[in-house]
Amino acid sequence: MKTELLVVRTGSSRSATDLTAEASAFVRGEGDGLFNVFVPHATAGVAIIETGAGSDHDLIDILEDLVPHEDRYRHRHGSFGHGADHVLPGIVSPSTAVPVIAGRLGLGTWQSIVLIDTNVDNPERRVRFTFIPG
Amino acid sequence: MKTELLVVRTGSSRSATDLTAEASAFVRGEGDGLFNVFVPHATAGVAIIETGAGSDHDLIDILEDLVPHEDRYRHRHGSFGHGADHVLPGIVSPSTAVPVIAGRLGLGTWQSIVLIDTNVDNPERRVRFTFIPG
Amino acid sequence: MKTELLVVRTGSSRSATDLTAEASAFVRGEGDGLFNVFVPHATAGVAIIETGAGSDHDLIDILEDLVPHEDRYRHRHGSFGHGADHVLPGIVSPSTAVPVIAGRLGLGTWQSIVLIDTNVDNPERRVRFTFIPG
Repeated sequence: MKTELLVVRTGSSRSATDLTAEASAFVRGEGDGLFNVFVPHATAGVAIIETGAGSDHDLIDILEDLVPHEDRYRHRHGSFGHGADHVLPGIVSPSTAVPVIAGRLGLGTWQSIVLIDTNVDNPERRVRFTFIPG
Repeated sequence: MKTELLVVRTGSSRSATDLTAEASAFVRGEGDGLFNVFVPHATAGVAIIETGAGSDHDLIDILEDLVPHEDRYRHRHGSFGHGADHVLPGIVSPSTAVPVIAGRLGLGTWQSIVLIDTNVDNPERRVRFTFIPG
Repeated sequence: MKTELLVVRTGSSRSATDLTAEASAFVRGEGDGLFNVFVPHATAGVAIIETGAGSDHDLIDILEDLVPHEDRYRHRHGSFGHGADHVLPGIVSPSTAVPVIAGRLGLGTWQSIVLIDTNVDNPERRVRFTFIPG
């Protein structure tokens, strides 16, 4: 097994950060196995979606509809509506996995691994990459 | 590790395709380990739900409520509202895993592995099965 | 690989049950690898969220907004609106994984592993813990 903790700058607005290049580099030369992405934060998730044609921002908008930043949450710390950010990982999980074949991620042509972070209070995030040999 | 790419016919309407029989056959005789299902498409997901009593179609209906096919998406290719299909994998992940015990999937009695495809522009899909020995 | 089936009492109301202590004990001394949590039921899911400040109950409330217990489902067994419980695992997956480093779960400070059960007809649930050595 190979594991590494990255630091990702997500800034102070709702963001979708493409991690595919870093992930591809991480598994290069590793043979067959399973690649896990895990975000060790309670207010972020990881999605596997298309980027570049707006779908990442469409997802952020839909998430705001589904889990709005409003005055309705029991969780009351942080910015207005921050309780929503704590519900987010219940919908967009902080853990996902991609099969690796001969050191290459088994992603489709239009798929990217994207860190979803709606929390504006935390501009820097850690992400753990792990490769489990098959 | 054992891995295989399947071709699944999902047709031209929103669909839920049960892959449990194929998955069970894939892991038969493989001992203990983890079975991963991964869809290498940006407009489909994999759910583990009951089939046969309508819940698969209930899920498709709820997804239409949550991520409607409307004129609201930045992503503007394909059929009307197709941007919704690109948000779907943010809610229903294209990757999931089931533990395997002595060559059998550790599913509950009422669980099935189901390919969720709301994209009507793409009647044929690939799905990758991977078994990681434990 | 090490695998174990637990019995969890979730009671007769919508519930979020923290399994982090049991999970930590399960992987202790196991070295590096991947820990999978799998619920072999068609009406429950597993989330990785904060507990203790109300976010688990916020998630249950949001899920009721997204997948309401109403008279709208094809699935018609059980209590009123029980069809909603069968849609739930399409949104909150019954399978998740956490990397394990030197026998410790790679969770962030505020993350807990939580069994989400909105099904009031089933007070007792099974959960499978599996450790895949890395």
